[in-house]
Amino acid sequence: MGKAMRWADGFIAVDWGTTNRRAYLLDATGHRTDEFEDAKGVLTVTDFPAAVAEIRERLGDRPLLLAGMIGSNKGWVEAPYVPCPAGIDELAANLTWAGEREAIVPGVSYIGQGRADVMRGEEVQLLGGVAAGLVAKEALVCHPGTHNKWALLRGGIIKTFGTVMTGELFSLLKDHSILADLLAGPVEPNDAFKRGVRSALENDLLPASLFGVRAGVLLGQTNKDDAASYVSGLLVGTDVRIGLTWPMAARIMVIGRPELTRLYAAAIGEAGREAVELDGEQCFLAGIQEIAKRIS
Amino acid sequence: MGKAMRWADGFIAVDWGTTNRRAYLLDATGHRTDEFEDAKGVLTVTDFPAAVAEIRERLGDRPLLLAGMIGSNKGWVEAPYVPCPAGIDELAANLTWAGEREAIVPGVSYIGQGRADVMRGEEVQLLGGVAAGLVAKEALVCHPGTHNKWALLRGGIIKTFGTVMTGELFSLLKDHSILADLLAGPVEPNDAFKRGVRSALENDLLPASLFGVRAGVLLGQTNKDDAASYVSGLLVGTDVRIGLTWPMAARIMVIGRPELTRLYAAAIGEAGREAVELDGEQCFLAGIQEIAKRIS
Repeated sequence: MGKAMRWADGFIAVDWGTTNRRAYLLDATGHRTDEFEDAKGVLTVTDFPAAVAEIRERLGDRPLLLAGMIGSNKGWVEAPYVPCPAGIDELAANLTWAGEREAIVPGVSYIGQGRADVMRGEEVQLLGGVAAGLVAKEALVCHPGTHNKWALLRGGIIKTFGTVMTGELFSLLKDHSILADLLAGPVEPNDAFKRGVRSALENDLLPASLFGVRAGVLLGQTNKDDAASYVSGLLVGTDVRIGLTWPMAARIMVIGRPELTRLYAAAIGEAGREAVELDGEQCFLAGIQEIAKRIS
Repeated sequence: MGKAMRWADGFIAVDWGTTNRRAYLLDATGHRTDEFEDAKGVLTVTDFPAAVAEIRERLGDRPLLLAGMIGSNKGWVEAPYVPCPAGIDELAANLTWAGEREAIVPGVSYIGQGRADVMRGEEVQLLGGVAAGLVAKEALVCHPGTHNKWALLRGGIIKTFGTVMTGELFSLLKDHSILADLLAGPVEPNDAFKRGVRSALENDLLPASLFGVRAGVLLGQTNKDDAASYVSGLLVGTDVRIGLTWPMAARIMVIGRPELTRLYAAAIGEAGREAVELDGEQCFLAGIQEIAKRIS
């Protein structure tokens, strides 16, 4: 039985990140028939063949197509980056085969304009959104996460992109900074969040504004319960201010986990632009199937 | 013997911060005759009377004048903030007495222009610089540290100030972020530092530029050995960009530890402004003696 035939019968798609993994069993018609998610992210796994075998035990003995940090230098087998411009064809043509039935999708890199950038995992969702007809071939896409991506699509292909460290900065502040006790509460796209967004859109004082939150609480000028949403607003607002300098920022596609896309959509709205939220999982499944179709 | 007489015979000055303390024995003529520094910062001390007694065992049985985080809500006895405008007289008139011979200098607060801010410890150095004739009565002063302060002096008094979380952000990135392994090296005001400063002065992309360092190293565009100085340059440059929006930024007095003031002086120079570096310890001793003189 040839490789293409085996994959056409259905396969297992895995979005394998730093801290968790999501695995989906897809049948020959592309329907998701089973799935699971767990906390076995790349950083917690030491025996990758065993972790892969466990996926097959749970979902069946099918070929595996893996994307995300599993292809990084901290993952199973390093899958070199494909440089921009990169579309589904470039991803499918540059799979790294960890075994005869285990392929890893490459990340995408950008070098130019005096800067360098990398993504790994988001590319499947961005290009999957295009493949599913949810994202126009000419579009600015925002993908919130630990490291938010702004990607410019031209002709349905990633032309260039940039990363903003928003999610990680919030985690650092929440877990380790002098603001930690103020940031324990939930983040909501409420009035406090929008105040933070507007402050960040109007000026560029982020490292000053952050300390101001602590001082405001100490001096009774700021409601402690607002702090988490306000600080998130400062960070997401700074991120959106950077994103609005990209071309085609009038209408921005926001792809990712719904609890993050709604924050970015609120911030983009506060900036007077239109945001369209798309579910990252749906885009991932569309993208990974487009790649699998090209395996021959 | 009256209070003023006891203090005029000499006293012990303590700059007691979060992570360390520096204690100085000053004689009746104001000369420093003994001193020590150790790691018994406010956060490590549970028995403050014992920690104070230990200072007297080492330096002699003299009155104590304490400044810094020792007066915070995590210190020995909380010394309420004195609001701006605040000079040496206001500090001396608002000491908090932890005992008959133990006084704590208040911090300074600012509320106005839609923001709030606090300092605790830097005020003695800023106003001490003026008292010693090292800082003009009309000046913009920068005090680098975990939380850098920009203070505007008018008539020798702190009129307003603002805090930028530069030092803490660098520590968070160095200790806990995805950049940690790139930031282990020394920070120097070298070419890489100045490149970071210029990047921050020219644009306001801090959370994007930070990730760019990692991507640059991954893609072989950035020298790993330059990363610590470059990232410090990005952060200090962002700080200086904010500081340059203050009045009187043509010539900036930079007070603090020499290893930090030289970084800020280099960044201010890169921005085409003049920086004058002053040793924070010298300014502290001048300020604390001015306060002691006013105890009656």
